[in-house]
This record gives sequence, C-alpha cells and structure tokens, in this order.
Amino acid sequence: MKVALDAMGGDFAPDVTIAGAIEAVSEYDTEVILVGDKQKLSESLRNKRYPSDRISIHHASEVVEMHESPSVALRRKKDSSIRRAVELVKNGGADAAVSAGHSGVAMATALFLLGKLPNVDRPAIATIMPSLTGYFLLIDAGANVDCKPENLLEFAHMGNAYYKAIFDMPSPRIALLSIGEEDTKGNELTKEAFKFLKSADLNFIGNIEGKDVFSGNADIIVCDGFIGNIVLKVSEGLAETIMKMLKREIANVTTGKLGYLMIKPAIRNFKKKTDYSEYGGAPLLGINGTCIISHGRSSARAIKNAIKVAGEMAKKKVHEIIANALSKGSHGGFSEKNFHGIKEDISYVKG
Amino acid sequence: MKVALDAMGGDFAPDVTIAGAIEAVSEYDTEVILVGDKQKLSESLRNKRYPSDRISIHHASEVVEMHESPSVALRRKKDSSIRRAVELVKNGGADAAVSAGHSGVAMATALFLLGKLPNVDRPAIATIMPSLTGYFLLIDAGANVDCKPENLLEFAHMGNAYYKAIFDMPSPRIALLSIGEEDTKGNELTKEAFKFLKSADLNFIGNIEGKDVFSGNADIIVCDGFIGNIVLKVSEGLAETIMKMLKREIANVTTGKLGYLMIKPAIRNFKKKTDYSEYGGAPLLGINGTCIISHGRSSARAIKNAIKVAGEMAKKKVHEIIANALSKGSHGGFSEKNFHGIKEDISYVKG
Repeated sequence: MKVALDAMGGDFAPDVTIAGAIEAVSEYDTEVILVGDKQKLSESLRNKRYPSDRISIHHASEVVEMHESPSVALRRKKDSSIRRAVELVKNGGADAAVSAGHSGVAMATALFLLGKLPNVDRPAIATIMPSLTGYFLLIDAGANVDCKPENLLEFAHMGNAYYKAIFDMPSPRIALLSIGEEDTKGNELTKEAFKFLKSADLNFIGNIEGKDVFSGNADIIVCDGFIGNIVLKVSEGLAETIMKMLKREIANVTTGKLGYLMIKPAIRNFKKKTDYSEYGGAPLLGINGTCIISHGRSSARAIKNAIKVAGEMAKKKVHEIIANALSKGSHGGFSEKNFHGIKEDISYVKG
Repeated sequence: MKVALDAMGGDFAPDVTIAGAIEAVSEYDTEVILVGDKQKLSESLRNKRYPSDRISIHHASEVVEMHESPSVALRRKKDSSIRRAVELVKNGGADAAVSAGHSGVAMATALFLLGKLPNVDRPAIATIMPSLTGYFLLIDAGANVDCKPENLLEFAHMGNAYYKAIFDMPSPRIALLSIGEEDTKGNELTKEAFKFLKSADLNFIGNIEGKDVFSGNADIIVCDGFIGNIVLKVSEGLAETIMKMLKREIANVTTGKLGYLMIKPAIRNFKKKTDYSEYGGAPLLGINGTCIISHGRSSARAIKNAIKVAGEMAKKKVHEIIANALSKGSHGGFSEKNFHGIKEDISYVKG
C-alpha cells in the first residue's frame, strides 16, 4: 500500500512526520509519499537511514496554517500539502492519505476531492478511545454538529463496518450515548435514533450513559459530532487535570517523592495504554477513499500508527465495505446543499 | 433556618440521612425536619445524641421508589416523604427542602408544588464540579434535554445569581460550553445562545472547549441539560476508570505496593478535594423556593453539606435574587404547556 503523508501538517512537522514515516516503512509493508516542500523534506531526510525505495517526495509549495478556514484554504491554497496528498488518492497515485495538519481543512479537502460514498449523507470522524478493558470507537467525534436521527444510524453502520474490518470482530456491540438506559430517556434526537438503531441489522445494545462510556461495555458509541467532540475533549482535559492534581498532592506529602518514584513505571504503563498515539488517528468515514486525520500534536509513533491504519483500511477496502453496508438502506444522496452544510459544520475543527 | 429533609430518600436512608441531619444541626445554626415514616425515624434516632430542639419528625407514610416515573409518583404517592418535604416549604413550615431520593421525582414535585419564578421558562439543575484551581458551576446539569437559545441565557442568569450569593463573588466568569473558542464555532443552539450571552449584563467570557472545562478558567459553564448530564457522568465515570486503571498498573509493578502506601495520603487528599459530598447537592434553580437535589449515594457528609447550602440559599433568598435578575428581561412566562414539557424532560433523572 502507498500512503500519502501530509509531511508539513502537525505541530512538529516535518521532523516528526518524517520520523513517523521512516518508522512506518521500516516496520510495515508499506510505502510512504511525503507531500510538501521538496527542498525542506530532502534536507530533513538527508543523513537519515531508511529504505529509500519506500519513501518518496511529492512536491507541494504551500502549507495550510491553523487559523485558516476550510473554505478559504480550499479556494486559495491549491498547492497545499494537504490538498496534494488527497489528490494523490483521488488520481490513484496513493491508496490513502494521512494528515496531522488542520483537521477541518483535511476533512473538507477529502470530502471535496474524493466525494461522499453513495448513500452516505454525512461522513463522520471515528476515534478510538481507551476504556477500562481495552478501547472503544466514538463516532461522530466532531464532523457534524447538528444531526438528524438518520445520521446517527448512518454513523452506526459506518463505525460497524470499520470496526469489523480493522479489529476483526464479527459483531461489535453498538451503543447510543444518552442520559439514561431506557429507550424513553434522551433528547429528541437520540429518542428517534434509538428506534432506527433498534430495527437495524446491527448488534445494538441500547443506550449507554456517560458514566459507562469508559466501562468497556460497548465497542462502538454513537453520538452527534457536537457531543462527540465535547466527550473527547472533556476526557482529554479531565485526564490531564487528574494527573496534574495527583502530582500536586503527591508533592505535598513527605513520603510522596519516593513513593512517586516507586510507582513511576506503573504511571508510564498507564500512560502508554491510554495514549492516543497508539491509535494513530481518526479516519473520516463515508468518503470515497481513505483519509486519516491525526492529532496536531502527533508524535512520530502516532504518525507511524496512522500510516499503518491507513494502509490497512485501504488494503481491506473499508470504504467499499461501508458503501455496501449502506446500499441496503436509503440515507439520502450526495447534494451540493448537504455538502456545504458539512463543510460549514466541520469548519470549527482546528487541531 | 428550617430545612425539611426527605429522610427516606437516598441509597442509605434513613440511617445516613439522619446522621447527616445530626451533623448539620450540631455544626450549623439550623433546624432539620426529618420527613418520613415516624416510627422508623424515631427508632433510628433513639440512642443517638443530638440537640433535640433542633431535630423534629414530620410523618409521611410513603416512599418513592427509584423505578417510579415522576408523573405516576406525583399522581399516586400524595403522602411520600419527598412530597411532604416540599409541601413544608410551600406552606411555610420549612425554609428549604433537601432530597437524595429519586431526582426526577424531587424536581417534578418541587416544580409542581412550588411553581416557577416569574419570567423563568425552564428551571435548571446547577452542579458544583471540582477544577484544577477550585471548582466551577455547571448549569444545566440535566433538567432540560432540549433547549432553546433563550433557555441557555436564562441558565446563565440563574447560575450567576446563585454563584454570587453563595460564593460571595461579585462577577463570576461565565462561559458557554462549545466546540471551539470563536463565536462561529458550535451547533445551532450554542451559536444563537452566544449572541444572547454576549449582549447580556453578565461577565460572559465566551465559549469554552471541552478540554478547558476543568482548567478553572470559568466559574460558571452553561450548556443544555443533555450535554450537562453527559459531561457530569462522563467525568464521574472517567475519574473512576482512571483511578481503577492506575491501581491496576501499580499492583503490576514490583515496587508498586510500597510506593502506593507512600502516596496514599496524597490520594486521600485528592479524593477529598474532588469529592462531590463536599458540595452536598445541586439546587433546582428557577423555582419559587429552595430545593436541593442530592446524589442517591450521598454520605452523611454530603447530606450535612446539602442542608448547609439549603439553609444558606433560603437565608440569602436566592430565589428572590434570581427573580429580580430575570425580571429585567423577557424569558416567557409560566404556562401549563411549558411545565409539562419540563415534567417530561426531567422524567429521566433517576439517581
């Protein structure tokens, strides 16, 4: 598989993106096309050891900055590294694209250039999050802020197809995020979505409450992108806050310093297990191709894993599996109106 | 101040509610009326030492069970301990009510018997949550699942009045929970609410993202009750999960056991600082009276603190302050339609 990497995207690009690419081609049976400023990338690559037949450079003269809006970036930066990476997927030069740059621009570009799959109304971001027993998939993690009940059903189908293909699990447990377990509990959106999910050909286990999100009781948790983004960010923020508060309290007790040294390997293990970089990035599901959006703060390890997942998704043709899964039902087709709706919706995603 | 305590409400009632009442009257200048089965309460009180002039019993023959729906409980259990406690507030026999019983029934009963304040459309639950620098108020934490932008403005005004009165802070910083800091980021509801908040006579500091909820950057965080409930529950669940995972990892390293013993006082301090029982319970703001909804798992300490806050709210006439704050704007008046809307909305709250 050939993965086009937006080498200029992310807080630590291009050094970290290049390091991730080198790790990926060294560990996996994959090729990486570094997309970005040829001169800068060549300089960064110089003196590094890597299988040179597996890494190439595709020139792009522009870089999208974090403050730019998706619509402006799409219109004005035709030679951006994000855009050129996605173009490679479109014209067959690559099998998948990965970007740790401006998420909103990456999503809008993928949507604009690759288009939506037939029967998909709203492409969605699927993010892996750690749980008490392993991990779960949160969908939509931020692409669509105002949703219809049908969209949540679509997210469930897309998440299901992705999860089955990537994690080799025949029947992942799908839950709807709500404020009570009973089908009568929720807001207008979730109560309607519950009915759709219940009668769908999915392993729908019902509503899941906020307190059980991390319990490991569900493999896929479905919600609209506004809630999804808030759950994702609140969790990140709270985890950081808890660790900071714990460290502060530990520093305040006399035996704390020594005790901390003794549990430090455990903290390292905990951090490793809950580190987003293990999961590499979040695919935009529902588009006609493979595109992974990585965290702006991605480490080389995160980039490596994103390249790995992108390659797997392309190899297993997850987008075709999704198209097949959705061809059974009617979810509304592509229209300019819908598309612009999405473009605006995702314009908030910055990092 | 006289506080009517639903002595039969909560997972550990009546022993824990009585213990909380005794602590409260011993520490604060308050009286408590224990509402519930006279015989059971008398038995529980026997052999306990407490200032007998400050604790009395008001008989109620029924108890609302956790599985009952608010509408059925309201209609059928006219002699329930929750209802009798709220009735005491209504007829002047008590200044405030506290219940750790069925939250949905407590809310519906308070709303039904005490009514809404003039100019209040949607009463809301205000919950104190710990932050990196202290605490913040989350409103609405679960009373209203589908909101209009005007409701979020109302929540901000009510939270502001409550915070100023209880924490003696002249100008608390109010933020709107959303998915980006800019006013253009959010869903339809928050984008409209942003405009209302910006032009209101409040110290509105703009949108706050999920990752900053626990940063201490805002004193009051406003959102609809669906999001509020999910933020509250996800946070509770994640905090528990993190502690469980950390303990598991600590147990897995050789020096972990000893290290854990050495940092244990720090963990205790951390738990104390983040313990909800410190804050006692969540007031239902916007009703014509004072009613605190406590966690079903409330400890005696939580009950004590709820009684304390209930007394303070009544003494400072927070409901009148809220009525004054809202009399300046127009927020729609009381109507049977609205009321039933709320009654249904809150019917999900169980614990």
